[in-house]
Amino acid sequence: MLTPAEAEKLVLENIPLWPKEDCPISRAHGRVLRESVLADRDLPPFDRVTLDGYALRASSLAAGVRKFQVEFVQAAGVRPGVMNPAADACIEIMTGAVLPAGADCVVPYEETARDGAEMTIAPGTGFAPGHAVHRRGSDHRAGDLIVPAGTRITGREIAVAAACGRAVLTVSRAPRIAVVATGDELVEVDAVVAPHQIRRSNDYALRAALAGAGFFYAERFHLRDMRQEIEHMLWHIIAEFDVVLLTGGVSKGKFDFLPAELDRQGVRKILQGVAQRPGKPFWFGLSQRQTPVFALPGNPVSAYTCLHRYVLPALGQASGLAPAPPRPVALAVPVTFKPKLACLLPVKLSSGPRAELLAAPAPGNTSGDFSGLVGTDGFVELPPGPAEFPAGTLAPFWKWV
Amino acid sequence: MLTPAEAEKLVLENIPLWPKEDCPISRAHGRVLRESVLADRDLPPFDRVTLDGYALRASSLAAGVRKFQVEFVQAAGVRPGVMNPAADACIEIMTGAVLPAGADCVVPYEETARDGAEMTIAPGTGFAPGHAVHRRGSDHRAGDLIVPAGTRITGREIAVAAACGRAVLTVSRAPRIAVVATGDELVEVDAVVAPHQIRRSNDYALRAALAGAGFFYAERFHLRDMRQEIEHMLWHIIAEFDVVLLTGGVSKGKFDFLPAELDRQGVRKILQGVAQRPGKPFWFGLSQRQTPVFALPGNPVSAYTCLHRYVLPALGQASGLAPAPPRPVALAVPVTFKPKLACLLPVKLSSGPRAELLAAPAPGNTSGDFSGLVGTDGFVELPPGPAEFPAGTLAPFWKWV
Repeated sequence: MLTPAEAEKLVLENIPLWPKEDCPISRAHGRVLRESVLADRDLPPFDRVTLDGYALRASSLAAGVRKFQVEFVQAAGVRPGVMNPAADACIEIMTGAVLPAGADCVVPYEETARDGAEMTIAPGTGFAPGHAVHRRGSDHRAGDLIVPAGTRITGREIAVAAACGRAVLTVSRAPRIAVVATGDELVEVDAVVAPHQIRRSNDYALRAALAGAGFFYAERFHLRDMRQEIEHMLWHIIAEFDVVLLTGGVSKGKFDFLPAELDRQGVRKILQGVAQRPGKPFWFGLSQRQTPVFALPGNPVSAYTCLHRYVLPALGQASGLAPAPPRPVALAVPVTFKPKLACLLPVKLSSGPRAELLAAPAPGNTSGDFSGLVGTDGFVELPPGPAEFPAGTLAPFWKWV
Repeated sequence: MLTPAEAEKLVLENIPLWPKEDCPISRAHGRVLRESVLADRDLPPFDRVTLDGYALRASSLAAGVRKFQVEFVQAAGVRPGVMNPAADACIEIMTGAVLPAGADCVVPYEETARDGAEMTIAPGTGFAPGHAVHRRGSDHRAGDLIVPAGTRITGREIAVAAACGRAVLTVSRAPRIAVVATGDELVEVDAVVAPHQIRRSNDYALRAALAGAGFFYAERFHLRDMRQEIEHMLWHIIAEFDVVLLTGGVSKGKFDFLPAELDRQGVRKILQGVAQRPGKPFWFGLSQRQTPVFALPGNPVSAYTCLHRYVLPALGQASGLAPAPPRPVALAVPVTFKPKLACLLPVKLSSGPRAELLAAPAPGNTSGDFSGLVGTDGFVELPPGPAEFPAGTLAPFWKWV
């Protein structure tokens, strides 16, 4: 049976790259950038004043001039004036304004006194050339690469794009995702529930987690254990969506039926079964149109874990996102694990005395119920048992979105 | 002047708690829960079978019975049958089904052979009572608290709510936030830009960061440096929004004007100025209706830093979110900082050999330009200088959303 790393590799090798589309920056938050953003002009575009005060020549101060004549007020957003060449010339100036030609530093208000058109600076106060001036091009030269393709767009990248005059960015098209719960035991959350039934929760959880990862177009479906219904619905879903997530119906008992139907509909199996707990029945295939079909176990914790371990990284890669390896954490307590399976263990993180990330298994509940995941931060992956992992063991960590 | 901790305390003491509203779980992702979610019945609600195979009595196996008669098939989602009291009785059973009365364990298909109605288990194979059975109430008893109020709702909490029959949850009302850029030097991103002008980027950045933190209703405004425009627009904005974020106009030069206008409109100043770099001019007040008004510096890095240091924690508290102290990280390299101000330093995180979180300052660019924040993960707060902070110094870390 495949290891988790082998299964991940197979999934990532077979996932398509989605097409690009244009997106206005006001709606680009969370999308994946598919082009590089370059500086369209020097950044800053001019010698920018960084506080309110008086622009003058540092050499005048060094030569002992203390009384200055205020020539005019230079506001932000207007074309700069030219300073008189006299040594005692100065210009009252505002944050964000262009430093006028002839001046080379700005003295803050706090260091000055004003009387009519005369400004005085106390003896002994000196300022070097460039003080409170953010020099043109000191951050970036026109043409510099600022944001590389493959970046998940946040406020910072949007601000850079705006500063560079990019009102529209090329991003990955958002995939339409079908989240399909299967099983006759499931009833809707607001329906009357019999003692032998359970309410649909998996598809809600997966849809919310997809939204948390930036994939907002997910629609929920429910297939009952009826061949005709599965056949008919599955055909439509595979034809209409960019990604299909099935939950349930992949364990041994029913599996002869649902995968047979997938097979009949031309979905090619890429992998089935991973040597891990939970999530062993994980299944992945591609439709004839190369639509990825993920079949997750029906157990809620298994499905949620497989989503984070395989599906979200795959959707990230399909979006063109640069890969980000999981961060290591250290076990806070010893962990015993007997099965010959990789152990995907929900944990809560805390910080050690040297800023170590410490991972403590969720207390008690290991049953597969979602309630055991409330209060956890993600899961670690431990190699196959049987093993005693001492406290301090390093393990890669996947964060719940 | 206030320390960052004092400023934070003042903000949090003065921030209102927002009203509650009902929200369907399909739209609850990212909202803050304002009620507790209790188990409405035992979880699991019945003795639930966790794999496909045969339900039987463990005592029969222990007594040496190896050949069993399959009485019927028990599917998930149907009322359970009752097992024949004979020692060699068994029931073929599916994942998710109710364990029938009389059976106490489930033997997986893999351990069995089948011939007509007869099922055989190889000698030496034993299963304890409870094997592959998830006992009723073993996770939670009806009435147990599962998700406490004050939780940010993710897929896990939505799943728990769904499992407990809660189609609608009580959450904090989403605030309407005005993001107001000020300054004549700003032009729209798609406008022609003169050499002395810069494009609006701050308000885009803040709006996107607010969305990243789960606050989606943010509208952008631009006030030019004209008293009448400010007077008129400000009045409307303060009347119509739940939170007002101003950027720019709080540095010394213009500040006599914009705060005077805020004062005239009944906005009571709570704090002005924090001993920190960047973000020293940070200003916070409350309108007569107790609408929080945050005035952030116009410098992009200052505004973004103040948003994360003060505004987002305040909005979290106003939403009823349980407080989460910042995680400590360790400096990856020595840092020298001369001003007598707290140092809020953008950093990139990496992992050390013991899973320590190591924070490296962003290389080069410390000018306040957004481009210097691309590639950073957040910022650390160091105590006021002048000081040499050696590598390994622990500091609290705020993550960019």
